[in-house]
Amino acid sequence: MDFTEKTINKQSLYQGKIIDVNLHDVTLPNGKTSKREIVNHPGAVALICVTEEKKLVMVRQYRKALEKEIVEIPAGKLEKGEDPEDTAKRELEEETGYQTDYLKKVASFYTSPGFADELVHLFETGTLTEGKAATDEDEFVEVIEATIEEAEKMIETEEIHDAKTMFAVQYIKQKLSSTR
Amino acid sequence: MDFTEKTINKQSLYQGKIIDVNLHDVTLPNGKTSKREIVNHPGAVALICVTEEKKLVMVRQYRKALEKEIVEIPAGKLEKGEDPEDTAKRELEEETGYQTDYLKKVASFYTSPGFADELVHLFETGTLTEGKAATDEDEFVEVIEATIEEAEKMIETEEIHDAKTMFAVQYIKQKLSSTR
Repeated sequence: MDFTEKTINKQSLYQGKIIDVNLHDVTLPNGKTSKREIVNHPGAVALICVTEEKKLVMVRQYRKALEKEIVEIPAGKLEKGEDPEDTAKRELEEETGYQTDYLKKVASFYTSPGFADELVHLFETGTLTEGKAATDEDEFVEVIEATIEEAEKMIETEEIHDAKTMFAVQYIKQKLSSTR
Repeated sequence: MDFTEKTINKQSLYQGKIIDVNLHDVTLPNGKTSKREIVNHPGAVALICVTEEKKLVMVRQYRKALEKEIVEIPAGKLEKGEDPEDTAKRELEEETGYQTDYLKKVASFYTSPGFADELVHLFETGTLTEGKAATDEDEFVEVIEATIEEAEKMIETEEIHDAKTMFAVQYIKQKLSSTR
């Protein structure tokens, strides 16, 4: 069965710096019409970055949408036309100071398919070289390195509280336990 | 160090049926100002629902934001003031027809902390009783039951392509392997 919802009218509600918001009038499979509020986002990258000491590299930052600080794996949004791997290398170095000899693609996933098209490309770093972080002028982050056990505690206390970071902690736990 | 970004002005850009969009002028820790585009969402529930045959119950549906059908674990947004556990029970029955004798809270997570406050409450079902699905008038979903191996293949083919479902598949895989 074809569930496609065809746009019959599209109204631009907002064109911003990071997101655009559009209201679509759509036809449903039963012929009726409905409205869909859609947020368009350029997409993002996120990095699973584990040090030689098996510590997960994360950043603590204030998230205005949540009105609180949380600890997340390094991430950043795609610039227009930028290759996700280039974004990943740039964000890793800017946010944490680390450089990596290679990037392995782990997965990609939509974050909020109900209302947004944000797609996150998730990479895993290779061998790390330490450098100096150089965050953007209006970006304030603190680098944190945590063992898996420490990261799991941070999930319990909700210091870690977002989907991509919780996925990463699970991924690393599974990987480390299968190579022990 | 306190990274709090204080709102000095807030402009409502859109008040919709599901999302509100606001533009905040904020002061940064360095005293400068910046703008934050924020999507406010009522939050949602999602369900890890495994049958006696160890199959994961999912739904295939068209996602307008992605302009494609994907397969996801059952989910739905919170009604105003509704207890997430009640939402979870309702959505499970509406979307899949199943009823559960209890719900276990697995986790909660923000889906897109960079621009949205959507929080997903993730539950795991107990013993299931079969019933009849009764989806909303403008909701078209097909119920799918897949083994973990089948679900992993659907991740490879990107039929499963969202963070909560990929987290759920990892969670169930870890759980089943530890109880084998």
